[in-house]
Amino acid sequence: MRNGTSHLFVPGPTNIPDAVRRAMNVPMQDMRAPDFPDLVLPLFADLKGVFRTDNGSIFLFPGSGTGAWEAAISNTLNRGDRVLMSRFGQFSHLWADMAGRLGLDVECLDVEWGEGVPVEEYRRRLDADKNRRIKAVFVTHNETATGVTSDVAAVRAALDDTGHKALLFVDGVSSIASIEFRMDDWGVDLAVTGSQKGLMLPAGLGILAVSPKALEAHASSTIERCYFSFEDMKAPSETGYFPYTPPTQLLLGLRASLDLIFAEGLDAVIARHHRLAEGVRRGVHAWGLNLCATEKKWWSDTVSAIVVPEDVDARQVIANGYSKYRTSFGAGLSKVAGRVFRIGHLGDLNEVMCLSALAAAEMSLRDAGAKIEAGSGVAAAQEWYRSQIGLAAPNLQERAA
Amino acid sequence: MRNGTSHLFVPGPTNIPDAVRRAMNVPMQDMRAPDFPDLVLPLFADLKGVFRTDNGSIFLFPGSGTGAWEAAISNTLNRGDRVLMSRFGQFSHLWADMAGRLGLDVECLDVEWGEGVPVEEYRRRLDADKNRRIKAVFVTHNETATGVTSDVAAVRAALDDTGHKALLFVDGVSSIASIEFRMDDWGVDLAVTGSQKGLMLPAGLGILAVSPKALEAHASSTIERCYFSFEDMKAPSETGYFPYTPPTQLLLGLRASLDLIFAEGLDAVIARHHRLAEGVRRGVHAWGLNLCATEKKWWSDTVSAIVVPEDVDARQVIANGYSKYRTSFGAGLSKVAGRVFRIGHLGDLNEVMCLSALAAAEMSLRDAGAKIEAGSGVAAAQEWYRSQIGLAAPNLQERAA
Amino acid sequence: MRNGTSHLFVPGPTNIPDAVRRAMNVPMQDMRAPDFPDLVLPLFADLKGVFRTDNGSIFLFPGSGTGAWEAAISNTLNRGDRVLMSRFGQFSHLWADMAGRLGLDVECLDVEWGEGVPVEEYRRRLDADKNRRIKAVFVTHNETATGVTSDVAAVRAALDDTGHKALLFVDGVSSIASIEFRMDDWGVDLAVTGSQKGLMLPAGLGILAVSPKALEAHASSTIERCYFSFEDMKAPSETGYFPYTPPTQLLLGLRASLDLIFAEGLDAVIARHHRLAEGVRRGVHAWGLNLCATEKKWWSDTVSAIVVPEDVDARQVIANGYSKYRTSFGAGLSKVAGRVFRIGHLGDLNEVMCLSALAAAEMSLRDAGAKIEAGSGVAAAQEWYRSQIGLAAPNLQERAA
Amino acid sequence: MRNGTSHLFVPGPTNIPDAVRRAMNVPMQDMRAPDFPDLVLPLFADLKGVFRTDNGSIFLFPGSGTGAWEAAISNTLNRGDRVLMSRFGQFSHLWADMAGRLGLDVECLDVEWGEGVPVEEYRRRLDADKNRRIKAVFVTHNETATGVTSDVAAVRAALDDTGHKALLFVDGVSSIASIEFRMDDWGVDLAVTGSQKGLMLPAGLGILAVSPKALEAHASSTIERCYFSFEDMKAPSETGYFPYTPPTQLLLGLRASLDLIFAEGLDAVIARHHRLAEGVRRGVHAWGLNLCATEKKWWSDTVSAIVVPEDVDARQVIANGYSKYRTSFGAGLSKVAGRVFRIGHLGDLNEVMCLSALAAAEMSLRDAGAKIEAGSGVAAAQEWYRSQIGLAAPNLQERAA
Repeated sequence: MRNGTSHLFVPGPTNIPDAVRRAMNVPMQDMRAPDFPDLVLPLFADLKGVFRTDNGSIFLFPGSGTGAWEAAISNTLNRGDRVLMSRFGQFSHLWADMAGRLGLDVECLDVEWGEGVPVEEYRRRLDADKNRRIKAVFVTHNETATGVTSDVAAVRAALDDTGHKALLFVDGVSSIASIEFRMDDWGVDLAVTGSQKGLMLPAGLGILAVSPKALEAHASSTIERCYFSFEDMKAPSETGYFPYTPPTQLLLGLRASLDLIFAEGLDAVIARHHRLAEGVRRGVHAWGLNLCATEKKWWSDTVSAIVVPEDVDARQVIANGYSKYRTSFGAGLSKVAGRVFRIGHLGDLNEVMCLSALAAAEMSLRDAGAKIEAGSGVAAAQEWYRSQIGLAAPNLQERAA
Repeated sequence: MRNGTSHLFVPGPTNIPDAVRRAMNVPMQDMRAPDFPDLVLPLFADLKGVFRTDNGSIFLFPGSGTGAWEAAISNTLNRGDRVLMSRFGQFSHLWADMAGRLGLDVECLDVEWGEGVPVEEYRRRLDADKNRRIKAVFVTHNETATGVTSDVAAVRAALDDTGHKALLFVDGVSSIASIEFRMDDWGVDLAVTGSQKGLMLPAGLGILAVSPKALEAHASSTIERCYFSFEDMKAPSETGYFPYTPPTQLLLGLRASLDLIFAEGLDAVIARHHRLAEGVRRGVHAWGLNLCATEKKWWSDTVSAIVVPEDVDARQVIANGYSKYRTSFGAGLSKVAGRVFRIGHLGDLNEVMCLSALAAAEMSLRDAGAKIEAGSGVAAAQEWYRSQIGLAAPNLQERAA
Repeated sequence: MRNGTSHLFVPGPTNIPDAVRRAMNVPMQDMRAPDFPDLVLPLFADLKGVFRTDNGSIFLFPGSGTGAWEAAISNTLNRGDRVLMSRFGQFSHLWADMAGRLGLDVECLDVEWGEGVPVEEYRRRLDADKNRRIKAVFVTHNETATGVTSDVAAVRAALDDTGHKALLFVDGVSSIASIEFRMDDWGVDLAVTGSQKGLMLPAGLGILAVSPKALEAHASSTIERCYFSFEDMKAPSETGYFPYTPPTQLLLGLRASLDLIFAEGLDAVIARHHRLAEGVRRGVHAWGLNLCATEKKWWSDTVSAIVVPEDVDARQVIANGYSKYRTSFGAGLSKVAGRVFRIGHLGDLNEVMCLSALAAAEMSLRDAGAKIEAGSGVAAAQEWYRSQIGLAAPNLQERAA
Repeated sequence: MRNGTSHLFVPGPTNIPDAVRRAMNVPMQDMRAPDFPDLVLPLFADLKGVFRTDNGSIFLFPGSGTGAWEAAISNTLNRGDRVLMSRFGQFSHLWADMAGRLGLDVECLDVEWGEGVPVEEYRRRLDADKNRRIKAVFVTHNETATGVTSDVAAVRAALDDTGHKALLFVDGVSSIASIEFRMDDWGVDLAVTGSQKGLMLPAGLGILAVSPKALEAHASSTIERCYFSFEDMKAPSETGYFPYTPPTQLLLGLRASLDLIFAEGLDAVIARHHRLAEGVRRGVHAWGLNLCATEKKWWSDTVSAIVVPEDVDARQVIANGYSKYRTSFGAGLSKVAGRVFRIGHLGDLNEVMCLSALAAAEMSLRDAGAKIEAGSGVAAAQEWYRSQIGLAAPNLQERAA
């Protein structure tokens, strides 16, 4: 069972491209060398491109996306500040939980799992907040637990329409570099991501893009912080040197990963994620199953959470995949445990890999008792992929014997 | 198109397991160090296990399988010696061609491509060879060009039945370590393989197993040789040191590869190759297509050569696979160019990888105009794999959220 | 100048052994797989061995040693708590600075750079603290900036002698796994280290060992924390699963690194660090130069800070090493900038590597105008190393031609 | 003893640059893919630059330098052809031995080991060969066993002066890409090298450059050959495809290695080899020892064979280096076994690495009883290296703390 490649379709950490693995497999380097900034400084410039921001500042913390969340809150807000959040999956839940634990006054809207940020309710709350007690509005751009993408631009519009000056915070951990995200166009004040999703690296970097307005808020923030403080961590983007030991190998991997992304083109990367995701979704629908995301507008291009038939235990599907077919799917978390399994389709993937995910899922589902037709999902996805790639069909190329 | 993993289904060089890649990725070592034999000597012992021989001697030449062929001939035969061969694919053809170029008197039987060694005709020729002019009988165990496996044991029986003392030479390049091969049991005198097939390494090692009887013939062989001479190359198996610079990284890779094979168990490796191959064949038949191998008894467990429909150009199928789906298939060679494409299913593979080969082939065939049903081959293979793996189904394993 | 190996003699991040590099160079894995705990759980058991604790609990945070410091403080103390610290180098300075920024009431003793923890003054302060306002005593076991090792056991004795119940915190970032450290024997309540020093990994893991008494204090700690909270991070040591995405490759590297340490034996590792360091020191003294550490009792076995002659700029020495000789030394920081350069001699090193450090330093010093004799430091170190290794001299071993 | 880097100073196989290791650490590729020639074809063009030939043709055989020798002889000469050779070390000896075994009529001049090709005697023999029976003249450009470089241009002059039309064959295994070699300028007809010396790769490629005149001779050559035949192996340089499975990883490594060489500049590479070698020689002379090469004109820039004092066994020196100091030296072979040890200084090396070789050699010599002064060789080499690098001294570069 351990022969051949393992098939990783969790929604992160994602597959590491071979070029990135190679870039990280180097002897240790001198992080105080005169040429170390030649590595570091361009990373900041290029990451701005990934967030699509000209005005924002980038902060890179050794840590995870969770650390980036904490950095976001502790550098810009104060204990007791009211923030408007919504909760519709495990990761938006954890974010709200952290905000509370760090001392914020969290106004959290509970939404059906399978839906996204309730923009109209946000609008109502903002409008009703005549005393402007809400200091920040939080948006989970892509809820990894349910495969739901929310409309950040609409939240911006709600802020603008109501004339509310609250900061707009976005969790882009499983969207940035994979799903359209436009920091400046959408007036986002602070966005966070991690290295282990669309950036195709191991976990270990929490990345933030921070608007000038959020940096202003930072100036009056009083939450104690040290490791995650912007004060200390602005140095790397200015000098190329870190205040404490950076994960040099990850920085080298980030260089390689950004090179891959820009060589493909960020727009092309995003289009590819949509194309691959759509194939998976067509497969799911061909099985006669539904996504956890309740409406097409919520469909995520980085992860599909699939509701199994009532008489099937999604945990068994996942166990089958791992133990019998060397394939890893994501589990249903918390409220949807046992009811959904997830196919992550972000990062370094191609069409045939997605077909292998569907093929493994079909077998795992059928082994778990699901009455779906063998090959049906694969066939639906094949037809979609052929229709998309066909446009670029090559002529017959002679090959040597 | 260059995202994600490439899908390599040529019948060699095969996918390199990650553990083997890692084992080869080391600083250069001192090939004259006192502990270098600790690496080298066990390789010879373990390779005997792979050839299933106790009596044979192993020779390891830096070179390819073709070099091993040359070593076999030039060390044991003499110019003008008559040898009995048969030709039914590009690789048996090349072997016979080499034998002629090296000065042997080649009695070569031409057989329909798609069939294997003509045992009965061999028997007749041996029986008719009253003057015992035939010094060696050659058997291409697995013809990689047509996906045909021949019956070595039956050739041995023909030799025994006719009381003929000719040497029995076997080309096991694409069979050994993947398809049942029993050197001692079958009375094989000389078998050759290369590093880049069942041994899952890059090309660069030609490997021979030589019986005591063949070594006797060697003593009276007069063909000039130096690089490929057994005299010089017996040292490594005795002392652990090579007469000229060995490819140390490949030796380290071979160590890792043999460890993988023995950890799985050679019988299990062979059974896995059969299981995986059978899934591919069921897929092919579900498409309504035929193998190049004309009868079930010839079916190869390491490579399937698939005949495309009359109105389809197999070269276009292969071009589609490579250019549109990042998938490499083997081409039809020489006589069958354009008529067949090949799926290599040997080495480091698992079920889902074989399904991805079928999925990519289905799309490539359909893009080339073949009227086969989308998903049909995948479905047939899935059912086969499920039936085989189901026996070892795990219970539900709880996973952490 | 960029040919050959670079020579890294900064006191961290240290050279990564090839075996560790290989262990980290793997495809991404499923961090929720049923067998993931097989990797994770033994790490915790083995790290207890490295800290020499039976009773302590291990916490592993994705982050750096600085993050581990923050975790230590924020999980066990409360804002306003008085702590006793001392400052005699850049890293003890930064630790005290963090303590203040996190809201502690820091009683910080300034000591001459080149000396270590002032045990007698600690004793006096503890004795005078009749109201037991001091909640914790901090010891920088090895000050990386000055190459000074302090006496942790003596601080424990001071606590015991005065009957003071304050917690004993140790910064072991540049000592643990390299210099003798005995958590249980010395009654240490909390010790921190990072992955990038004696553990020979890239930066990215902050590691803590926490005594039962410190865990008790944790129960009543009220500092807001989330990322670095013990509550969330106790799961991995119990279940093998992390509360947020772990740096899997680093965990695999840690496995390999611990395997190397235990194969050599922790005592042998520590003895080797002493042997290698002593050679470097003999070289320094043969040059006629002094260490920053003012007395022999302070000499560090992991880093030597070397005071350059008055008319020499240590920054030029370092610049020469890097630019002319592909060799990295550590800089003098803050108060000793320009006055010292540092040779890190911890982690994956051997005698000849240390000789190359001395050889490069000799050239770099002479190029910067220092009047030291060429080869003198190397010769002194050679004699020391020969005297130490000679005991284990092998007989003549025949080598193959 | 197994900590840290091993120190490899054998004269091949040489240290593999990290960039080359990385380039070879890739998944297996499709050697029949339409874009495979994009890798292969430029290698041939670039190798012509390494041999400094415009007119020559390159052949690349999977095998070793020994295989390249065999290819050279068997493709251009005929059994019974007289060739003029000379023997003054183990490798020139083996070459002559091969020539005899392959059926040539070898006129071999025995020269004192420590000298090189006897140009005047060659001249006399050529002049005396009125019937022009000598078909080829062989020159071992660099005798690896004794560290002797011969004068190829002078042999060309001898041929020209005598009007002799014999082919000029050069063994450049340990010179090409490291010591000045000019195929066209020197009228060399056939030169061979291997991948594992100046090209800094693992063994596994035998490389030949062949003049138009030698290709003419090839047309009338009748030695049986197959694996090493030019007929079959001209395809790769024309089509990019190999007649049998190529060692793809080595080709990728060769790409990286050529990139490194051209980035540094071939002239700079050769100058560096001279600079590094001269430091080693100054160290040897500072010890009061002599090279095996009897005159300065024979000194090799890729390997120094060092004669140990009479009462010292060179094998013990080598054993000490390996077992006590993790350092590999080359052994004295055959006639000079026990009398010399060799320091290889070719390939991916820098000054500090050479100093570490001298430092390890000093200890190994002294441990074996040699009365040399500790540090003396290192000091002499340091002064040389400082004098050479000093010219390019950088200004003080500020480093971040």
